[in-house]
Amino acid sequence: MSHPLLPIHRDRIAAELADLATFSDPPSPGVTRVLFSAPDLAARNWLQGRFREEGLEVRPDAVGNLFARWIGEDPDLPAVATGSHIDAVPHSGCFDGTVGVLGALEAFRALRESGFQPKRSLEIVVFSAEEPTRFGISCLGSRALAGRLRPEDLEALRDEAGTSFAELREGAGLGHLPLAELAPPRYAAFLELHIEQGPLLEREGTAIGAVEAIAAPAAYRIRWEGAAGHAGTLLMPDRRDALAGAAEGILAVERAAKESGSCDTVATVGQIAVSPGALNSVAGSASFGIDLRDIDRARRERVASAIHEAFEEIARRRHLELAWEAIYEDPPAVCDPGLVVQILESAGRFGLRARRMISRAYHDSLFLARLCPIAMIFIPCRNGRSHCPEEYSSPAEIEAGVRVLADCLRGLAS
Amino acid sequence: MSHPLLPIHRDRIAAELADLATFSDPPSPGVTRVLFSAPDLAARNWLQGRFREEGLEVRPDAVGNLFARWIGEDPDLPAVATGSHIDAVPHSGCFDGTVGVLGALEAFRALRESGFQPKRSLEIVVFSAEEPTRFGISCLGSRALAGRLRPEDLEALRDEAGTSFAELREGAGLGHLPLAELAPPRYAAFLELHIEQGPLLEREGTAIGAVEAIAAPAAYRIRWEGAAGHAGTLLMPDRRDALAGAAEGILAVERAAKESGSCDTVATVGQIAVSPGALNSVAGSASFGIDLRDIDRARRERVASAIHEAFEEIARRRHLELAWEAIYEDPPAVCDPGLVVQILESAGRFGLRARRMISRAYHDSLFLARLCPIAMIFIPCRNGRSHCPEEYSSPAEIEAGVRVLADCLRGLAS
Repeated sequence: MSHPLLPIHRDRIAAELADLATFSDPPSPGVTRVLFSAPDLAARNWLQGRFREEGLEVRPDAVGNLFARWIGEDPDLPAVATGSHIDAVPHSGCFDGTVGVLGALEAFRALRESGFQPKRSLEIVVFSAEEPTRFGISCLGSRALAGRLRPEDLEALRDEAGTSFAELREGAGLGHLPLAELAPPRYAAFLELHIEQGPLLEREGTAIGAVEAIAAPAAYRIRWEGAAGHAGTLLMPDRRDALAGAAEGILAVERAAKESGSCDTVATVGQIAVSPGALNSVAGSASFGIDLRDIDRARRERVASAIHEAFEEIARRRHLELAWEAIYEDPPAVCDPGLVVQILESAGRFGLRARRMISRAYHDSLFLARLCPIAMIFIPCRNGRSHCPEEYSSPAEIEAGVRVLADCLRGLAS
Repeated sequence: MSHPLLPIHRDRIAAELADLATFSDPPSPGVTRVLFSAPDLAARNWLQGRFREEGLEVRPDAVGNLFARWIGEDPDLPAVATGSHIDAVPHSGCFDGTVGVLGALEAFRALRESGFQPKRSLEIVVFSAEEPTRFGISCLGSRALAGRLRPEDLEALRDEAGTSFAELREGAGLGHLPLAELAPPRYAAFLELHIEQGPLLEREGTAIGAVEAIAAPAAYRIRWEGAAGHAGTLLMPDRRDALAGAAEGILAVERAAKESGSCDTVATVGQIAVSPGALNSVAGSASFGIDLRDIDRARRERVASAIHEAFEEIARRRHLELAWEAIYEDPPAVCDPGLVVQILESAGRFGLRARRMISRAYHDSLFLARLCPIAMIFIPCRNGRSHCPEEYSSPAEIEAGVRVLADCLRGLAS
């Protein structure tokens, strides 16, 4: 049931989402697509093919962001941009990020089919490595665009296998583009279509969320250093067990979030590495990351301090050495009030129930907000699940989001 | 300072231990030599060369145990055996196991140089995979020899990468030896020379430990199953975080060992795997192994029950699913009293201070005890450290152990 003025094909988006999901290593369960891995490179290739079929002008930048432009009648005006990311954390779903990329492509198609000619250029941006899987840094591409990662920061990045960002981008065919010449784009506005990754819209039966603000995220890397030893001969009183210390730390993170006084505080330890990592060896060291978010920056900082203090007490008591490093502590982003109203009005025109809301998840829009007015369009996803194979938004839900996106882009680019 | 009747070259053993330590991947820190990995295969090769240089008859068996025989005047009599292992847990030292293998070789050389001709054959055994690194099973080779791993158990083994034991032994050139024809050796006695892996001998200034019993080890594999989700949007009260549950479990293991009533109880969680394992994903599942040891089997069983009960309470409270599997629950081994006396008397003859003691660590001797009379000769190691790069026994300490070993072998094979 496509709107007469905007012929959106929900089946086409669903089919393309399924196609994109096949670029995964391992192929199951869920989708795993890590920055500059073989499936990521293949997916980028496939996507550029789709963009070129639509007559878009495609170019990558030095960090692997992809830009696909529909050139407007007045190409010198700042463009109107939209987009999201296609990388996927291990064993996650096929809607996070991808809906904002393939949805933008479908919006462009619908606008073109409807006979629309943009005055300003319209651009899809596919951001490089929104997920922190490979380098422990979220939003690598948009962060670099916003000038929050300098060329020397990027040059210093290494993944767990010791491979440098420089080697990887060389392998991706981007070596000829100098990192120092990464130019921040000049956009009139940026809109990101995304699944909610929370339960609110589905619970309320609301089709469209107009995001007013994005929660403030912080991430820390922690290393506990004790003494390795033989599990049979190192007696309990003599141990300096790094994993036992880390286990107390994980529970302290959980407790601090639960006791913040607000359910808007979330803190997570989702990965851990232990050395030497053998069944019969006491752990000599253990490292993990903390992901800490809140819509209130001051509260987030209080919780981070409480966790840090708890860790110091654990380390003292267990005679462990503790290394605490902030990976990032980003300020929240506020969306442009005019764009938020535009999204709500557009939804109204199509008879879609809409509401204002907060984004608890981290998005590239957070960094685009440093370059231009931004807003986000959220659509429901089943049970609020995300970053897991069960992640799902229906073709009808996606179509509604694309419709509002296309309508807003039309308004902004006219 | 070599004894006139037993010309033992401490520098030669030290040099050979250093040579053997170079077979490691990664090359540092410490030694990592996993069953049937490239460095393990290369080390086996190198070792067979050393054995053949000494005129020993070398043969492997179907699980990768290596036998090197000095044929006695009466080759039909049951042989006298000695040996240990050369595999090494990640980033461990270069003395655990290897001293019992290269020390046995040096003992053979010294006996031959002294003009000794054995009546019974003398045999060095290099056991396959004493460490559980690859398949989560300690003493794979000696366990199989003792009939505690059947061919079908071995066929079913897969490592974490999904590679089967069958494929690996095929790759090691052992595929032509049928697992079903693994014959338990007929030995008159088995002696194992080993570093103590504990602090007792060094603290007391004692050169030789005559092991009377080996502590009873058990190992369990545990899987915590919760629900994965997005670290930003899955609110704290809605979480079923498998890693947080596992963290409580790790602390329950530690507590149960500390509260057993005896310092002889040790329990360790030394490795953990988390899925999906991303900074910004709540853990959907977490798995770890427990290594639990005691010299008192009944107490060990009480502690295992206490841990299991604690885990069930954690799983219930956190709405996690718990899978608890016993990998092995082995009985303690008692050494042959006559062999223990022989070790003590031999030490006395060389003016070496000696004592009776318990082995808290797990050894291949535990399984050889099911086939023949056994005993172990312990030597001091610095600060009792083992399974870490700091593991160290001096050339003089090793020489003393080799001297007692050679003397005992001479007595037994005459």
